[in-house]
Amino acid sequence: MNSILLENITVVTMDDSRKVIENAYVAVKGSTISYIGTEKPNGDFDVCISGEKKIVMPGLVNTHAHLAMTLLRSYADDMNLQDWLFKKIFPFEDTLDGGKIAEGSIIGIDEMLASGTTCFNDMYFFEKETAKIAVQKGIRAVLSEGINFDGYDRKIKLTEEMLEEFGNEELISLAIAPHAIYTCSNELLKDCAGYAKKNGLLIHTHLAETQTEFDDCMKEHGITPTEYMESTGMFENRTVAAHCVVMTDRDLKILKEYNVSVAHNVVSNLKLASGVAPIPKMIEMEINVSLGTDGASSNNNLDMFEEMKISAILHKGITLNPTVMDAWTVLKMATVNGAKALGFDNLGVLKAGYLADMIVLDFSAPHLTPNHNTVSNLVYSASGSDVEYTIVGGKIVYNR
Amino acid sequence: MNSILLENITVVTMDDSRKVIENAYVAVKGSTISYIGTEKPNGDFDVCISGEKKIVMPGLVNTHAHLAMTLLRSYADDMNLQDWLFKKIFPFEDTLDGGKIAEGSIIGIDEMLASGTTCFNDMYFFEKETAKIAVQKGIRAVLSEGINFDGYDRKIKLTEEMLEEFGNEELISLAIAPHAIYTCSNELLKDCAGYAKKNGLLIHTHLAETQTEFDDCMKEHGITPTEYMESTGMFENRTVAAHCVVMTDRDLKILKEYNVSVAHNVVSNLKLASGVAPIPKMIEMEINVSLGTDGASSNNNLDMFEEMKISAILHKGITLNPTVMDAWTVLKMATVNGAKALGFDNLGVLKAGYLADMIVLDFSAPHLTPNHNTVSNLVYSASGSDVEYTIVGGKIVYNR
Repeated sequence: MNSILLENITVVTMDDSRKVIENAYVAVKGSTISYIGTEKPNGDFDVCISGEKKIVMPGLVNTHAHLAMTLLRSYADDMNLQDWLFKKIFPFEDTLDGGKIAEGSIIGIDEMLASGTTCFNDMYFFEKETAKIAVQKGIRAVLSEGINFDGYDRKIKLTEEMLEEFGNEELISLAIAPHAIYTCSNELLKDCAGYAKKNGLLIHTHLAETQTEFDDCMKEHGITPTEYMESTGMFENRTVAAHCVVMTDRDLKILKEYNVSVAHNVVSNLKLASGVAPIPKMIEMEINVSLGTDGASSNNNLDMFEEMKISAILHKGITLNPTVMDAWTVLKMATVNGAKALGFDNLGVLKAGYLADMIVLDFSAPHLTPNHNTVSNLVYSASGSDVEYTIVGGKIVYNR
Repeated sequence: MNSILLENITVVTMDDSRKVIENAYVAVKGSTISYIGTEKPNGDFDVCISGEKKIVMPGLVNTHAHLAMTLLRSYADDMNLQDWLFKKIFPFEDTLDGGKIAEGSIIGIDEMLASGTTCFNDMYFFEKETAKIAVQKGIRAVLSEGINFDGYDRKIKLTEEMLEEFGNEELISLAIAPHAIYTCSNELLKDCAGYAKKNGLLIHTHLAETQTEFDDCMKEHGITPTEYMESTGMFENRTVAAHCVVMTDRDLKILKEYNVSVAHNVVSNLKLASGVAPIPKMIEMEINVSLGTDGASSNNNLDMFEEMKISAILHKGITLNPTVMDAWTVLKMATVNGAKALGFDNLGVLKAGYLADMIVLDFSAPHLTPNHNTVSNLVYSASGSDVEYTIVGGKIVYNR
C-alpha cells in the first residue's frame, strides 16, 4: 500500500473549527488520510515531503467544466454571444471527434492538476475519452454527456456503456446532463430527471445563465427558468445547477428547498457578459454554492485560484460591502461545498479517514510574503502556479 | 556595452499596427532595442535566448502602487473600510521606519520583476529607501512621497534630497503626490500643483475613489472631487489620477480636456468595495487609462496580468457587453498607456531605439495551449508566473 508523509507543514484542514495547524504531520496510507497532527507518526513511508514554508489543503473541486474546450482556448474572444456561439464555437465543435476530445482532455487535466484541482464535474461530448484520460492521469471526475434536442437515446446509451466500463473505477462517477431548458424539450427534461432518479445519478445542468434565457422562458412558459426546471421533477435528484445568474427570490427559495447546489462560474459569467449571480444572497440563505471554471473558451483557463479571488472581490465591489465573501467562505466554496455538491461525504476536508485528495503549495515566493493570514494569502495572493504537489486518492499525480 | 539576442521568438510589439511577428529576432545593445525583424542580425551578443514557444512583449507598467505595503499583505482583509484603515492599516503604518520600508520594497520589487512589471509609479513614505532598492534590483520607478495634512514642507525637503541623490539615475524619476482631496487642504493642493509645475514633475494622486469622498466633497465644496481638484490648478501638470471610480460626465470631460491619465485599480476597487470605475466610457472618450495594483494590502498581490484579466472581464459583465475591453485594448493599458501616463516617449512599445524594457513569457504550459491568439492568451490565460525573463534597460533582472 503506497504511503506519503508530509512533515512540518502548515495544514489548512477546512473543517468547521477553521483550524490551521502549524508544524504538523499529514500521513497518507493507500487512498485515504491516515493521520493529521503535531506528533510525528510511526512507521515507514514511501515518500516523505518536507513542509517548510509549505501549505497543505484539500484539493480544489471544479463543479462546472467542459474539459475538452481547452481546444478552443483563445479561439474566439470579445464577441457578441450569438456570433461567438454560431460563427465560432458551434462550427468548431462540429469538427470534434473522440481523438480530438482525448487531446483536449489531456491539456485540460494537465492544467487542472498543475493548478490544484483534484476533482471536476464535466459535461461535454465523447466523455468516454475523457474518462480514459482521467484514469490515466489519476484525477477524480464526475462525467456526463451533454444531452440536448433529440440526442436523449444516444446519450443514455453512451452513459450506460460508460457505467459498464468505468462502474468499478474509483476515480470516475457519472452524471446526467440535460444541457439547459432552452435546448431540451419538456419531455426530454422529464426523461433525464426520471433516468437519474432510477439510477441514483447526479444531475448536471445549466440554469438561468442569461437574461435572454430568463425572458424567453417567461414569455414561453409564464414561469422562470428555475420554476420551469422544478416543474420537470429535475430537482428531486441531487443537482448541480451551473450559473444561476438571473434569479428571483422565489427561485432562490426553490434551490434551497430542494438542496440544489449552485456552480458559480464568475469568470465565464463576466467574460460572456451574462452578469453577476446573487451569490451573497445565496450564502445568506445557506444554499450550497461551489465554484466552476466553465469551458476554457469562455475563461480562458482552468485556474480555480483565479475563480476564488475574483468571486471574493467581485461581490464585495457589486454589493459595496467588503465583508461579504470573506476568504474562508470562498475557500470553502472551492473545497467543502464542491465535494458536497457532487455527493461525496469523505472529500473536501483534510481529516483522518477521508480521501487523500490534497494539494501542497509553496509559500516561499515574494507574492506570498509575508504570510499574516494563510487563508487570506490562499484566496487573495496565490495562483494555481504556486501548487507544488497534487495528490489524488493518495497518489502524487503532479510535482512541479 | 551589454547585448542580448532573442532568437526565433514571437514578438508582440504593441505598436499601432498590432503586429505580432513570429520567428523573429530582437536585439538589445546597451539600454535600448537595436533591432526587431525576421532576419538574424550580425555580430556577437553577450546573451542569446532561444525563443521557441516563447513570447516577448513590452514590460508591464504599474501606474499606481504603494510598494512597501507588501508588509501588510494578508494583514487585514474582508473588513469595513473605516475599521480596516483606522484599526489595522494606520496603526501598522505608524510603526514603519526606513528599515522596514526597505524590507517591504525588496519583497515588492522581487514580486514585480517575477511577474513582468518593469516600471512602477509609487506613492508612500521613506521613498528614498525604495529608490535605493529599485536601483539595486534594476527596476524603473517613478517615486513620490505621499503628502497630506501638514506634511508639505517636510515632504518637499525629502523630494529635493532625492532629486539631489537620484537626479542622474536613469531608472529613477520623481513625482509630487498630494494624497487626496480629503487629506490635503486647498492651500496644500495648490502648493503641490505649483511645485510640480515649477520643477516639471508628474503629479500622482488619488481621485474620486469612493462614493463617500464624492458625497463629502459635494457637501463641503458644492462641486465634485474632479472639479475641486481642477480648481486647484493640479491638472495643469501631467497627472496620474488613481481610481476615478465615482465620476460625472462632466468629470470625464475635465480629465479629457487636461489629458489626465487614469490609473485603474480594478482589484483594489472591488476588494475595498469602492465600486466600478466607468472605464469603457473613458476609453470611448479616448482618455488615457492605465492599470495599477494599488498596495498589496488591498489586492493582495502585484500581478499586473491579474489586473488585465479582471479589468477585461469585469467591464464586460457590468455593461453586459462582451465586446468592450477587448484583449488588445487591455494589453495596451498595461504597456503603452502606462508609459504615456508616466511621460515616457520611448517606452511601452517594442521598437528599435526604444528602451529595452521587456518580458519573455514561456508559452509551453498547458494553460497556454493551444495558442490560437497570442494577445488573448496573454490577457485571459496567462499569469505573472509565466514570465521567464524580465529585462529592464537592457539588463536581465529576473530569470525564472
